[in-house]
Amino acid sequence: MTNLELPLHTKIDGYGVLDNELVIGGRKISDIARELGPGPFFVYDSALIRQRIEHLRAHLPKGMHLHYAIKANPMPAVVDFIAPLVDGLDIASEREMHVALATDMSPQLMSFAGPGKRVSELEAAVASGITVTIESETEMKRLEAVADATGSRPRVAIRVNPDFELKTSGMKMSGGPKQFGIDAERVPGVLDQIATSKLDLVGMHIFCGSQNLNAAALVEAQYKSWELASALMKRVPHELEWFNIGGGFGIPYFPGDAPLDIAPMGAALSDIQSQLTAQSSVTELVIELGRYIVGEAGIYCCEVIDRKLSRGRVFLVADGGLHHHLAASGNFGQIIRKNYPVLIGNRVFADQAEVQSVVGPLCTPLDLLADQMEMARGNIGDLVVVFQSGAYGPTSSPVNFLSHPHPRELLV
Amino acid sequence: MTNLELPLHTKIDGYGVLDNELVIGGRKISDIARELGPGPFFVYDSALIRQRIEHLRAHLPKGMHLHYAIKANPMPAVVDFIAPLVDGLDIASEREMHVALATDMSPQLMSFAGPGKRVSELEAAVASGITVTIESETEMKRLEAVADATGSRPRVAIRVNPDFELKTSGMKMSGGPKQFGIDAERVPGVLDQIATSKLDLVGMHIFCGSQNLNAAALVEAQYKSWELASALMKRVPHELEWFNIGGGFGIPYFPGDAPLDIAPMGAALSDIQSQLTAQSSVTELVIELGRYIVGEAGIYCCEVIDRKLSRGRVFLVADGGLHHHLAASGNFGQIIRKNYPVLIGNRVFADQAEVQSVVGPLCTPLDLLADQMEMARGNIGDLVVVFQSGAYGPTSSPVNFLSHPHPRELLV
Repeated sequence: MTNLELPLHTKIDGYGVLDNELVIGGRKISDIARELGPGPFFVYDSALIRQRIEHLRAHLPKGMHLHYAIKANPMPAVVDFIAPLVDGLDIASEREMHVALATDMSPQLMSFAGPGKRVSELEAAVASGITVTIESETEMKRLEAVADATGSRPRVAIRVNPDFELKTSGMKMSGGPKQFGIDAERVPGVLDQIATSKLDLVGMHIFCGSQNLNAAALVEAQYKSWELASALMKRVPHELEWFNIGGGFGIPYFPGDAPLDIAPMGAALSDIQSQLTAQSSVTELVIELGRYIVGEAGIYCCEVIDRKLSRGRVFLVADGGLHHHLAASGNFGQIIRKNYPVLIGNRVFADQAEVQSVVGPLCTPLDLLADQMEMARGNIGDLVVVFQSGAYGPTSSPVNFLSHPHPRELLV
Repeated sequence: MTNLELPLHTKIDGYGVLDNELVIGGRKISDIARELGPGPFFVYDSALIRQRIEHLRAHLPKGMHLHYAIKANPMPAVVDFIAPLVDGLDIASEREMHVALATDMSPQLMSFAGPGKRVSELEAAVASGITVTIESETEMKRLEAVADATGSRPRVAIRVNPDFELKTSGMKMSGGPKQFGIDAERVPGVLDQIATSKLDLVGMHIFCGSQNLNAAALVEAQYKSWELASALMKRVPHELEWFNIGGGFGIPYFPGDAPLDIAPMGAALSDIQSQLTAQSSVTELVIELGRYIVGEAGIYCCEVIDRKLSRGRVFLVADGGLHHHLAASGNFGQIIRKNYPVLIGNRVFADQAEVQSVVGPLCTPLDLLADQMEMARGNIGDLVVVFQSGAYGPTSSPVNFLSHPHPRELLV
C-alpha cells in the first residue's frame, strides 16, 4: 500500500500504485475501466471497508454496538458486505428497509429513523419487526394505531432533540428548534404516554450532527448526550435494550482537513459505557456510522474526453461530473466550494505536473470536479479519480440532470 | 385567473383559485392529488407554457426563431407540447436527442451543444441530421472523422466563448477562461479549418449566461454578442443559416426578485435582426430559452405528514423535499439560501396565517423547502405547493437520496 500525497490534501491511505496507476481492490484502475466499458463509475473497496470497521472495533470499547447507517451507501452489495461485520443496520426509508431485510441480519437489530415517515412505512417496519424511532407525538399515535389494527406490540425507540448542539459540525442536527426527534424537555411526557401504550420502548436515540472532524467537540457532545440520556432513561420504568449515541465522525475531504483522531472518542465512549453499565446491566451502547465506514473506501472515476486551453487555463472535460457526484462539485451543503482530492488515476505520480481544472459534460459552470488543481498532465483517454467518494455519491446526485447516462457502481 | 400575492415574493400570475384552492390547468390541486394517489408530484400547465410562448412572440421581432432548450424540462409530454410552438429544439445529451426526435420536428431544426459530447453522441447526432455545435478543436476533428467514416457532410455550428461577460447573471458562462465553446480570438483559425473540411457550417452560437433578471445587462450582452458574431461571420466564406444569440432570460424565484421586462430585449433584438439582415439575407436570428418558457408554468406539490412544534418554531414535515426539488431547498448553485414562493395549496388565502418552516422527510437539515415563511396554518394532509418549479426540478434533483420514492410528473 502506498500513501498517496496530494499537494494540498491529507494523505490518502489504503490505495496501491502499480505501474504508476491507482490500484483499488488489487486491480489497476485502467483494468477496471476497460472491463466496465465506457462511462463513469464508482468503485468501493471491501477490504478498506473491513479495515475501517476493524479500526473502529480496536478503538471502541468492547461490547459496544456498531451500526451501519445505510443511507451513506445503500448499494445492496455494500450493505450485504457490511451486515455481518456490524451489530445493526439503520434505515431511513422503505426502500432502504428492503435492502436491509435482504441481508442475513435480524430485523431486531434494525432501526428506522427520519422526521417524516409515511404511515405505510411505519406499517411495513412494524410488520417486519424493525424498531421504529419515534420522532414526534404524531408518530407515536400512528404507531399506536398500527398496534391496535394489527394486534402487535411495535418495537419503538425515542429520538431526543437535545438542548445543546454539536460544535464545529458540518451538519448541525440538534440544539434549538429542529425537525428531528422530540425536544428533550418534552420527552418525559412522551415517555409517560408510551409507558401506558401498546408500544414496546426498546431504545433511545440522540444524534447531534454529522461530518465532524473535531474530536474534542465530538467527545463533548457524547458526554452531553449521555448525561441527557441517563436522566431520561431514569424516567423509563424498565431497562432499555440500547442507547444510540449517534455518530457524526467526519472524514477529511478538503485541503487543510486532517483525519479525525478517534482515540479520544474511544476513551470517552469507554467511560460512558461504564457509567451506562452501572446504571443498567442490560442497555447496550450503540454508535451509528455511515460516511465514516464507507466514505474513504470508494472512488469515482470518469474519463477525460477533451482537453481545452481557454485563455491560459487548462480544462480537462470529463464524461462525468456533478450529475454523478454533486458533493464533489461543491453543490451539496457547502458554502464555499473546495476541491475533493482528485488525481489522474492512470498517472498517479507526475513527471509533468500541471494546474488543471476538471469539468463535466454539463452546460453549467457548476459542473466542476477540480478547480485549478495541480496533478499529472491530463490527456484525452486519461482517467480522473475523485477520492472520498464511497458515501453520498450517486444517491446524493441529480443523476437525470441533462439526461446523461447514470454512473455504474462496483464493489471489489 | 387570480394574481396570487405572497407576502414577500413577486405576484404569481396565471394560476386560479377556486374554493380557496389553487387551480392549475382548470383543476383543483386536491383533485389532482387525489387522482394521482399518495406521494409528491410536479404539474406543468400547458396553457401557461403556450401563453409564455405567445408573450415571447409578441415581443420578439417577427421572423426571429425561438428555440426550446430541452434541458430545462425534458419530460416527453412537455417537449411534445412545445415542439409545434417553437422553431427549433436544443439538446444537451443523447437521451435528450431521443426525446427531440420523437416529436414531429425536423432534425434540421435541432442542435446539440455541450462541452463534453462523447464520440458516440456525435455519431448519433450526425446520423440523425442534427446540427452539432462544435465547442473545441477536438470536437471538430472528431466530427471530421465521422464525416470520413460515414461519407456524410455533418451539419455543424461553432460556439464562441466571447471575451466579455454577462453582468449580474445567476450563471456566468462567458468571458475569461471557460470550458464552453471556443475562445473568440481562436475562432477565426477554426473557421479557416472548417472551411477546408467536410463539415457543413450552418450556424454560430454565443451563450453568455442564464437566469438573468436584469434587462439592461441582457441587452448589453445581446449587442456585444451580435457585434462579435457579425465580425466572425464575415470570416465565413458563405452565409450561415442561423446565429443563436443565446437566452439567459431569468424568472423571479426569491423575495425581492422582479419579473424580467422583456420589452427592451425585444427592441434590441429587433435592431440586431435588422443589422443581421443587412449583412446577410439568409441568416436567421435565433434565441434559445428553456427556463423562461417552462419555469413559471410548473409547480411541485407534496403533502404535510406531520406538524411539529420545536422550541417555538413550527415545522410542517412533508413527504417531499430536496430529493425531488434540490433548487427549492437552496442547494443548487445558490450561495445564500432563499425561499421559493411556497404556500398551502388547499388553503391559499389564510384566515389564520402563521410563520412556518416546511421540511422534507430526509435526515438532513438541508432538506428545507420553506424557511420560516408566512402562510396559511398547515395541518396534516394539507398540500404544500412550491411555485416556479417547471424547470430544473426532478432532473436537477438527487431522486435516489435516502431511497425515497421518486416524484411523478403530470402535464395538464
